[in-house]
Amino acid sequence: MDKDLENINAIRILAVDMIENAKSGHPGIALGCAPILYTLFAKHLNVVPDDDKNILRDRFVMSAGHGSSILYAMLHAFGYKITMDDLKQFRHIGSKTPGHPEVDLVPGVDATTGPLGQGVSMAVGMAMAERMMASRYNKPDLTLFNNYTYALVGEGCLMEGVSYESLALAGTLKLNKLIVLYDCNNVTLDSTISGVMDQDIIMYMTSLGFNCLEVKDGNDINEINNAIIKAKTCKDKPSFIKINTHIGFGSPLQDSNKAHGSVLGEDNCRILRENLGVKTQPFDLGKDVSRDLIFLRKRFESVKADFKERLKTYSKYYPGDYKLLMSCVDNDFDGLHETIKTVSMDKELSGREIGGLALNVLCNKYPSIVCGAADLSGSTKVKFNNNGFINENFANRNIKFGVREFGMNAICNGIALYGGLVPIDSTFMVFSDYMKPALRLGAMMHKKSITILTHDSIAVGEDGATHEPCEQLWSLRAIPNLNVFRPANLVETCVAYESALKYNGKSVIILSRQKLSNFSSNYTDVIKGGYIVKDGQKRQLNGVILATGSEVSLALEVQKLVENRGYSIRVVSMPSLEIFEQQSSKYKNSIIPRDLKSIFTIEAGSTSGWYRYSGKYGKCFGVDDFGYSGKSEDVYRKFGLTPENLAKEIVQTIRNNRDKMLTLLDE
Amino acid sequence: MDKDLENINAIRILAVDMIENAKSGHPGIALGCAPILYTLFAKHLNVVPDDDKNILRDRFVMSAGHGSSILYAMLHAFGYKITMDDLKQFRHIGSKTPGHPEVDLVPGVDATTGPLGQGVSMAVGMAMAERMMASRYNKPDLTLFNNYTYALVGEGCLMEGVSYESLALAGTLKLNKLIVLYDCNNVTLDSTISGVMDQDIIMYMTSLGFNCLEVKDGNDINEINNAIIKAKTCKDKPSFIKINTHIGFGSPLQDSNKAHGSVLGEDNCRILRENLGVKTQPFDLGKDVSRDLIFLRKRFESVKADFKERLKTYSKYYPGDYKLLMSCVDNDFDGLHETIKTVSMDKELSGREIGGLALNVLCNKYPSIVCGAADLSGSTKVKFNNNGFINENFANRNIKFGVREFGMNAICNGIALYGGLVPIDSTFMVFSDYMKPALRLGAMMHKKSITILTHDSIAVGEDGATHEPCEQLWSLRAIPNLNVFRPANLVETCVAYESALKYNGKSVIILSRQKLSNFSSNYTDVIKGGYIVKDGQKRQLNGVILATGSEVSLALEVQKLVENRGYSIRVVSMPSLEIFEQQSSKYKNSIIPRDLKSIFTIEAGSTSGWYRYSGKYGKCFGVDDFGYSGKSEDVYRKFGLTPENLAKEIVQTIRNNRDKMLTLLDE
Repeated sequence: MDKDLENINAIRILAVDMIENAKSGHPGIALGCAPILYTLFAKHLNVVPDDDKNILRDRFVMSAGHGSSILYAMLHAFGYKITMDDLKQFRHIGSKTPGHPEVDLVPGVDATTGPLGQGVSMAVGMAMAERMMASRYNKPDLTLFNNYTYALVGEGCLMEGVSYESLALAGTLKLNKLIVLYDCNNVTLDSTISGVMDQDIIMYMTSLGFNCLEVKDGNDINEINNAIIKAKTCKDKPSFIKINTHIGFGSPLQDSNKAHGSVLGEDNCRILRENLGVKTQPFDLGKDVSRDLIFLRKRFESVKADFKERLKTYSKYYPGDYKLLMSCVDNDFDGLHETIKTVSMDKELSGREIGGLALNVLCNKYPSIVCGAADLSGSTKVKFNNNGFINENFANRNIKFGVREFGMNAICNGIALYGGLVPIDSTFMVFSDYMKPALRLGAMMHKKSITILTHDSIAVGEDGATHEPCEQLWSLRAIPNLNVFRPANLVETCVAYESALKYNGKSVIILSRQKLSNFSSNYTDVIKGGYIVKDGQKRQLNGVILATGSEVSLALEVQKLVENRGYSIRVVSMPSLEIFEQQSSKYKNSIIPRDLKSIFTIEAGSTSGWYRYSGKYGKCFGVDDFGYSGKSEDVYRKFGLTPENLAKEIVQTIRNNRDKMLTLLDE
Repeated sequence: MDKDLENINAIRILAVDMIENAKSGHPGIALGCAPILYTLFAKHLNVVPDDDKNILRDRFVMSAGHGSSILYAMLHAFGYKITMDDLKQFRHIGSKTPGHPEVDLVPGVDATTGPLGQGVSMAVGMAMAERMMASRYNKPDLTLFNNYTYALVGEGCLMEGVSYESLALAGTLKLNKLIVLYDCNNVTLDSTISGVMDQDIIMYMTSLGFNCLEVKDGNDINEINNAIIKAKTCKDKPSFIKINTHIGFGSPLQDSNKAHGSVLGEDNCRILRENLGVKTQPFDLGKDVSRDLIFLRKRFESVKADFKERLKTYSKYYPGDYKLLMSCVDNDFDGLHETIKTVSMDKELSGREIGGLALNVLCNKYPSIVCGAADLSGSTKVKFNNNGFINENFANRNIKFGVREFGMNAICNGIALYGGLVPIDSTFMVFSDYMKPALRLGAMMHKKSITILTHDSIAVGEDGATHEPCEQLWSLRAIPNLNVFRPANLVETCVAYESALKYNGKSVIILSRQKLSNFSSNYTDVIKGGYIVKDGQKRQLNGVILATGSEVSLALEVQKLVENRGYSIRVVSMPSLEIFEQQSSKYKNSIIPRDLKSIFTIEAGSTSGWYRYSGKYGKCFGVDDFGYSGKSEDVYRKFGLTPENLAKEIVQTIRNNRDKMLTLLDE
């Protein structure tokens, strides 16, 4: 048998061993696309297995993340830090071989994948990042950045809308160093794709601006190899290689959807081994194969030497650029606090305008920041002024993503994964729904990126219910690891940006469309996530009002009215609940006294999670319904969010609660 | 001037009057696409303005919903129940002319639009519904259903991934009665589309299986008319007509993105009127135009007569089918309670399997139900057994949507809008994120449809963090109008289905992947949304545990352990918080005593909204982090969700709370 084929079959069986041992997984894709991954690792990927985060490396994204078994088996075979024991722990808790690839947890995995369509979108982001880094750092006599980004997709990824969004942008931007490998087996979980996905896929990808190639026999690694070589020569388009494979190749379930997502079982595995001519024991690649793999890994040594040499030469001849590059790669925002404190304004502005001011100060100081919008930069103010768009020149700092919110956020995840750049994207807050899956995946991956969401409440007004967010705030706050800020003034906006740039993960900053009244705050207070804006008139408090964003000034108005009635009430601003929750119990108690019954919350959105603070005896004021089209103030009135009404309700509640307490003491 | 052009220009100016009067809106599209809408209303749409819900009518979806002004102006012009006063109230609160089109609120509006890409996806759903209704009801000698569905899209809709998903399915299903009108002006909010959307749109739509046509001059209504006539003759493909228009036509801002989303202002309006030759006062179409419009409306009278005649003949010759049709259109689920009570099982099953049993009983009885999945019907069990897929024959009841969650849900919204059918779609719960915008829009529109979400927690296990929902439950519960059920056993699942089919809106039923232990419940209890499963051992309660779904049986185990320690604790199942909240205070208090401090909640998801019940002194147990890949029981243990750990924590809290109370009394 051909040596490569022998290696491939051994690795195929290893992946199946993992699945059988875990009693769960996806053997179909593992058997079908093994030759594609093998060709990549054996002949193309310029990577360094023992330095798997090297910034100069080629990227590979297993967009069809359910193919994790074959990816891990391949990484093991090609010398990444994944042992045979790790493979035996596939899909077991605490292992570094989880059910779907997870970046950082698994050596050699460039992106967390599984939710379909997002992997290839992140690959687009990586290919964009490569172009941007090349434009910034490459020199006429020294090419530092020139890596390829490969993504393996199946029918599932291609059916998902997010892949269309990002691939359309990739074609438009002519990202010729992006190579999409389509594992075409015409089968998905439920059935063959006939009657489900009858589109002409080559014509489709051509229409998006891709250079399209086809590999007739996905088991022929020469054909695969030649197609990749050819793809690399294309200088003005990204490439798409359709590779015809057989799901579950070699097993009795070959070409059937039954091979997709269930273990093959003992009998099928026996026949598979026979068909593939693999005679070793489970979890054993065999001597011959192992020896050959060690030989194949030698290629990585020269890649490593080349990367080292290029960086060394660069540091010698361009020490300033090298230093800048390293500080960007290390996310070193030197002098951040001093920089953000220079943001100032001389009149009342809207949240989004304040955000725009802060962004521009930051962009001026930190060249790693790139920013953009889903066709709303004029509205979100997420634009580095006096600078162009990468759509014209990759050296620019602004990005026009088009009306593609989900693609945008997934692409930003890819840019953040690449390293050396911090992406800031933006849209209207109500459309955060469109990008929710990417916000989640980004939060899971812990890479620095920021999403700006403006037009943050029913104050959107005239555009009406479809454009007025209400449940989105709590939906975002519930995403683990995601830092959510809803600032109320200049200082809070600056702290939000500062915290977001310090945070090793994804943040969301939520800004108003309308003007904010700029009450004063101290940095040292705001940094705690929740703090007293104006305390009650007497030491003995009757209640506390918590508010965020544009509702803080509403709360201050309410406070006045309530205090006029003789009650002492405190106003607390809560720009970040996540950060507030990280404070000591003592601090939290000093802001929101635990045993005080009359705790109120005001936020022009769903009240869902506010009960944590209000308890059962307080009251949460908000918008637990869809909004209305009308003037902002009319819509607020519709939901009872006026100073007069809120003051009335609060006084009533304070009285009720006091009554209750008296009754209790009477007993 | 040509009479049609005179009419069009008068209507253009009317739309601009509305925007100027509202001081907000989108004049660009109104001026650009007026001739398209005019041609449709004047020559093609078979509708009945004074019976705008007639089931036999053609549908028109303004997918570019920001074009509401021109749509409302056109509806007014063609005799719908929208007065000139209504138009003056455009974008004012309480009006029937909101900022974006809203179904039912605005006569003649077939779908709520604004969030881009979803309108055309709903149009695909309507075209699918037409095929399904035709297959069910048409007779060789009497064609009842044969309407066309038109959608107007701009660049924004076409860039959105959801439109790709649904258009790809429309092409695959050869929905030849769908005609997509592309208002091609090459401009979006931020700029021209060059460098943002350079795809070959005709090749793109051709690749998806569309019959593509082009109108060179979007002001030439003969050319538009001819293209539509030609599109109607295509028998095996949906049609796509690219119509080249000018954004802001006639105004000084023509062809600029400045015309997109802001009012034109007085000066520009004056020039616009001059350029278009319109001399009437604001909000006045003028005598000539008004007279001509009255003439044009005569066409609708014959349409009305034809619809009436067809239905009458049908009722005469096919009285049984007619009766069935009417009951389906009226959503009359006769005998629902008795039917659902026949669902039974003889062994422990998973939530999704129980759901599958219920679904099949319902499908057998009610022919209006159609169901499907995004390539996961084998996993979600949302399949009417012994029945095929509409992908082969539209008379079937199952739908393969492909791996297109967002498209699927938007299409289902379209099917629900069409009438006569109740769509039930399904996917894994974690992928509800992909369809979130459609769930929201569906909830807003109040049309009967159900989404089944299975694999509902970290119990997904081996597939790992990317596949384990945690924050999704509260994210869904926060969507206004959306009925969310997470049943714990057979009876709760049946009640969920019963409530969902009774509810005039969108519902979500969340089901487990793993087996549920089938404790017994009474229908009369479950119907209240929250009820006592097992009360405490003593009358004096020390605490209450609230739980949902698979965690109810966990709560019962915890109860045992806690009671062994001498405490009396009640277990409450909460399959629907929305329905529970609708009960009387008295009932709610009888289930969860308001003044009891030790209220606990157990749910294998985010604790976000549970504090409403636990208050500050209880405790919420859940998953406020991403999950892990491993055996289900290992992942539960990782989050402390074991009977032993929970019992320990609960006992501790009960003791703390009691201590607190004693201290208080001591004072």
